[in-house]
Amino acid sequence: TVCPNDESDPTRMLLELCVDGYYVAPGQVHTDLFQRGLCCNYGPLGVELKKNLLEQWWSSIKRSRTQVFGISTLTTGDDKSGEGNPSLDVERLNQFLDADEFNKAQRTQRILMLLRQSTSLRTNLLQGALEQYISWLELVNRRLPFGLAETGLSFQPDGSASRAEATHASLVWFCSPRSSSQWLDHWARLRLQWWRKFALAPSEFSSRDVQVDELQEGASRGVKIVYSFPWGQETLENLWSLGDSELLQTHAGVRAKIQCFDGQKLVVPHVISVVSNMDRSMMAYMHNSLQLMKKHDGKQKLYRRKVLKLHPVLAPVKVALDMGRGATLEQRQVCDGLLQEFLEAGIAAWPGSIDITSSVEKLNTKYDEMGVLFTMVIDENTLESGLLQVRSRDTTIRESKHISEVKGFLLRYMRAAHNM
Amino acid sequence: TVCPNDESDPTRMLLELCVDGYYVAPGQVHTDLFQRGLCCNYGPLGVELKKNLLEQWWSSIKRSRTQVFGISTLTTGDDKSGEGNPSLDVERLNQFLDADEFNKAQRTQRILMLLRQSTSLRTNLLQGALEQYISWLELVNRRLPFGLAETGLSFQPDGSASRAEATHASLVWFCSPRSSSQWLDHWARLRLQWWRKFALAPSEFSSRDVQVDELQEGASRGVKIVYSFPWGQETLENLWSLGDSELLQTHAGVRAKIQCFDGQKLVVPHVISVVSNMDRSMMAYMHNSLQLMKKHDGKQKLYRRKVLKLHPVLAPVKVALDMGRGATLEQRQVCDGLLQEFLEAGIAAWPGSIDITSSVEKLNTKYDEMGVLFTMVIDENTLESGLLQVRSRDTTIRESKHISEVKGFLLRYMRAAHNM
Repeated sequence: TVCPNDESDPTRMLLELCVDGYYVAPGQVHTDLFQRGLCCNYGPLGVELKKNLLEQWWSSIKRSRTQVFGISTLTTGDDKSGEGNPSLDVERLNQFLDADEFNKAQRTQRILMLLRQSTSLRTNLLQGALEQYISWLELVNRRLPFGLAETGLSFQPDGSASRAEATHASLVWFCSPRSSSQWLDHWARLRLQWWRKFALAPSEFSSRDVQVDELQEGASRGVKIVYSFPWGQETLENLWSLGDSELLQTHAGVRAKIQCFDGQKLVVPHVISVVSNMDRSMMAYMHNSLQLMKKHDGKQKLYRRKVLKLHPVLAPVKVALDMGRGATLEQRQVCDGLLQEFLEAGIAAWPGSIDITSSVEKLNTKYDEMGVLFTMVIDENTLESGLLQVRSRDTTIRESKHISEVKGFLLRYMRAAHNM
Repeated sequence: TVCPNDESDPTRMLLELCVDGYYVAPGQVHTDLFQRGLCCNYGPLGVELKKNLLEQWWSSIKRSRTQVFGISTLTTGDDKSGEGNPSLDVERLNQFLDADEFNKAQRTQRILMLLRQSTSLRTNLLQGALEQYISWLELVNRRLPFGLAETGLSFQPDGSASRAEATHASLVWFCSPRSSSQWLDHWARLRLQWWRKFALAPSEFSSRDVQVDELQEGASRGVKIVYSFPWGQETLENLWSLGDSELLQTHAGVRAKIQCFDGQKLVVPHVISVVSNMDRSMMAYMHNSLQLMKKHDGKQKLYRRKVLKLHPVLAPVKVALDMGRGATLEQRQVCDGLLQEFLEAGIAAWPGSIDITSSVEKLNTKYDEMGVLFTMVIDENTLESGLLQVRSRDTTIRESKHISEVKGFLLRYMRAAHNM
């Protein structure tokens, strides 16, 4: 049966799929947050997808240049000492309480504002890297260029007292003032390549120069990498050329200490900031890889098959193991043994054996929506011949393979996918 | 020369090593936090060590049982809607402002307390898993046992307005009431094995039953896994048998909805909570793997060599590439090419080539303190013969290997280490 909702509202369909495929926790709150490019409660597949994305980001950033070093900074306490300053709060609070010029509502309003500001959760990863800059100069012998990379949560004040959180991946690149503009171009090109590498429809990912009136404070140039969602373009990544002002401001009065060698010359480096929103990037890849296929079943009814064709490297589940209905104890043992073997080899495997009530056909539909790369069915034949049915998500073709060769097959497939 | 400080204060020596080896950011604030088992600003090697530990934790938990699913919940907003409730704050704030019975100091005090409580950052990962429990019942066909695993930040109110953060790894295991006590023993045994697997001196990791008066509220039994630091024992992991009370409390009034099948019978499951502190675990493994060796140099002076013998799987840097003093451009090109090759193959490699001012001997001392597994030196010979010197951290033996075989050597070594 054709569901008219699917065609008229692709956004809703995608969000439903996120929940049905165990990417996002059920509940309007979570799909809303996810659609806004924010952290939500993720399910098992969402957790894996995010982990895979972050892993790819790290290895790409590290490979791109040898002088990139990972750091991690505290999420609490924006001040440089690394400790909150409760006395500030008391002082300002008393000010508000004592001030006669406020009426009750104004006073409440101001205290609420203070309340929001007081638990200083970081709003970006840039500031932490700028503060840590001096600590890692010895590491690079004060030689430019080098970069500090970090992934973690950022918190945006959200209008209300609660805060919206998002997972950021940040590279702060310190380089010669002479070449900062080329470096911005370099990173923008490299990053767009990265985004497109995992895409089914690469053209939905694009980059554009930021107009002068959109520039972040302190930035002389900017590039955005955006994705075309059904409801419009959204920013996945911001690249800013920030000059030296933010670094000088963070380390005020110690100009000599922050200078680095640009060849033989000592200079205050320019800063390039590259920040991706990894929650929104999950949404982008899920949207990008969702394919709708029309299909006729035996009774000539038309229905749509939804297949989440996530790149093999990103797909949270590489293989699902099933037994079909009415499985015997022996089948279950073989299934569990194989599952264990896959997990030991680092292959993300799904215990399909927990669902013994559905038909194989129904399970395949489910796995396609989850983006599972391969499905293997252990049936009575397997016990006799050692053969099992291997179905590919992308070709829908079923092949018989011997149980002794399936692990090797998956490992080779994944290795090839990594080199794609 | 023997440094008397080293012997008299092993804690201080360890903390200095953390900073000198690029594990922890310089500054008293960070070493203090780290020593207390809390998150601090980490350097490049600290970031990698934590990543390696978390990866091992995940794969061990997933392999141990097929019915373990990863989830991720929000760090902000403890309430079930997933959104903060600013109206509550306003109401309580007005109460305090209006109350005549308070003097100014009391009023300030109460408002400050409200301020601390109002930004609801989670204090544990257990609550999130209990709340998410119902969402993932369909996934397991309401069959016990199953587990929800999560890693992430927890925030402890710290006396002051600032909060201390720590990285937790949590498994919440839902099981039959009949077998909850056996499950607690099962997990305690498995987890202690895991801790000891990566230890140089496994006996420093031990477990003990929690006394009745130490039990967490709601817990009927508990086991602690502790590490013996120079300053005393500290808890790395808590395992609690929590019965069904917390689950019933979290989902009050929907008893039928939270029941699961224990065989053919519907029951409210019992909860086992297993929580590790991953920041403290870094400290424990660093302490555990630090070896002091007495050594005479050529001039018969006695000095101590500090070697951080982290397990190969945990060691943040597997190989450092060096050129020694006065390297030529060709040497640098070979070095960079090899570095790139290692990074592409997923081998964590250190660009020793950024330090061209130190002697090879001095570099080796440094690498031993960083826990680098292998050091390779590209010298003039390498350009002619293709041979380079490979030095092992653990044996201090140098061997010549051909440049074409070093990648394969490292990959085989790491594969063996993973199976150790």
